[in-house]
Amino acid sequence: MVCDFCSKKKKPFFETKHWRVFLSGDQSYLGRIFIFLNRHAESISELTKEEWIDLLEMMKKFESAALKAFGARLFNWSCLMNNAFQEKNPKPHVHWHCRPRYDEQVEFAGLTFIDSEFGHHYIRERKREVSKEVVTAIQNELLRYLK
Amino acid sequence: MVCDFCSKKKKPFFETKHWRVFLSGDQSYLGRIFIFLNRHAESISELTKEEWIDLLEMMKKFESAALKAFGARLFNWSCLMNNAFQEKNPKPHVHWHCRPRYDEQVEFAGLTFIDSEFGHHYIRERKREVSKEVVTAIQNELLRYLK
Repeated sequence: MVCDFCSKKKKPFFETKHWRVFLSGDQSYLGRIFIFLNRHAESISELTKEEWIDLLEMMKKFESAALKAFGARLFNWSCLMNNAFQEKNPKPHVHWHCRPRYDEQVEFAGLTFIDSEFGHHYIRERKREVSKEVVTAIQNELLRYLK
Repeated sequence: MVCDFCSKKKKPFFETKHWRVFLSGDQSYLGRIFIFLNRHAESISELTKEEWIDLLEMMKKFESAALKAFGARLFNWSCLMNNAFQEKNPKPHVHWHCRPRYDEQVEFAGLTFIDSEFGHHYIRERKREVSKEVVTAIQNELLRYLK
């Protein structure tokens, strides 16, 4: 068993010393991202102080960027890693999910984004796959404020 | 509007310099806890480096304790804060949720705990309220390894 993330090494749209940021193709929550640790570690317990502080700085940068870019009102952060344990020899790789949440509808790239569950837990079943062009537009808008 | 957490100041079963730990009455996932920041802050962006490092140490202690006490296999961590935004003047208070996850059933305090969704996202609807006596027993078992 090899770790999926380590073997593929996809290109992030933003990165820090220890973390790589990817925009989800599912933009049911506008600006939904994943943040992956640069090296293989299997739980929060394995993280170093330096990696942890770098994560906080990354989170702060992202919250500020999504607020400025799209008016995000709050952020749902989670570190779950359930799916890796569907394998016989699990190789979980530490990563975070972030779903920005919105109390108003947002118009962007010709689309309307509505967070109809604002004030409540996110709904995983409400998927919204967007085109590559829209992914790029969202990334570029975030990058204006991330750097 | 006053912050619910700040006004009530409930007694935690464990605490560090900056964080207070409470066992959830819902033990659908054995060892489910909440970790509240000691002072009022409304988002991760407001946390200091010192509070953040203290949180990592707390998380590591808890993961180790839940592994030793109950054999937890992995941990679902999240910082969501949705419910506070159901109010007109939201006063969210930074807190974390942790649901330990289990690949085997656990017998404790005369009860059987089964994580039937292991390898998948937690199910919020599957609640299991336990008695005060069971809450105390779970806390005491965790405390054996937390200190």
